[in-house]
Amino acid sequence: MRGDAIRRRRTEEGLLIRPIRNGTVIDHITGGEALNVLKILGITGSTTEEISVATNVESGKTGRKDVVKVENRELRKEEVDRIALIAPRATINIIRDYQVCEKHRVDSPRYVTGVVRCPNPGCISNANEPIESRFEVLPAGLRCTYCDWRITRDLSSHII
Amino acid sequence: MRGDAIRRRRTEEGLLIRPIRNGTVIDHITGGEALNVLKILGITGSTTEEISVATNVESGKTGRKDVVKVENRELRKEEVDRIALIAPRATINIIRDYQVCEKHRVDSPRYVTGVVRCPNPGCISNANEPIESRFEVLPAGLRCTYCDWRITRDLSSHII
Repeated sequence: MRGDAIRRRRTEEGLLIRPIRNGTVIDHITGGEALNVLKILGITGSTTEEISVATNVESGKTGRKDVVKVENRELRKEEVDRIALIAPRATINIIRDYQVCEKHRVDSPRYVTGVVRCPNPGCISNANEPIESRFEVLPAGLRCTYCDWRITRDLSSHII
Repeated sequence: MRGDAIRRRRTEEGLLIRPIRNGTVIDHITGGEALNVLKILGITGSTTEEISVATNVESGKTGRKDVVKVENRELRKEEVDRIALIAPRATINIIRDYQVCEKHRVDSPRYVTGVVRCPNPGCISNANEPIESRFEVLPAGLRCTYCDWRITRDLSSHII
């Protein structure tokens, strides 16, 4: 930036985000959920990762969508399973040397084990037992297979 | 997306981020601090805001920088003061009708009041007294004017 003077009539520069060389593009994320996707990827606060994020972009397909790009990283299955819970229409694009090498949708699993903490403090999965949490994935939320507790909103805050 | 088949040799699409019509572009953020800037703006988890973020972008000026764009929002002074603490070289660009209408650097103030919580539990600013926290801004951190406690790292976690 040359000088601090107020500059009027200068057009805002676009094109902040270049294509990535290697990494993952997560597209068609449910509108507004990108920061929760970053949390699932362990990206919070200060970061050395090269990421690009756009939220609530207009999209013919779903109305509004978010997009997350992460350079030099391919996602692990556990990460993709967690993303599926909050963004069931997301697509995962793996980029190598600027080419889309793989492109697939996330799978909504029927059950998730060890992914979500049961909000019921009395649930056996919250006792000091060697039992992982287990939820059935329903069209409108999750159901604990141990205590029947249902999670119907703010799912991302329960993800482990 | 037509079909879910793996598509090879397709080039990754760039240009995710369009120029914004009205809003604020925060440029030259210290590399890796964009998500902390979002926290200061109250943008965490699910959001209805239209934001774009790029982290650790190469920049001739500072090595690596982050950029945050927020549509339909101009920042309040308290927000800019907080951003100055974690990104002292940031520039704030106010966009109206696609034009850069104002452009200025953040100011590192000499003192910040009510912005940072003192980590010393015995500090009077943490007692139930009608006293706001107050820190002197030093070249390498902050100093509590009540108890002399110094904060030299992980500043963003202490911002109120």
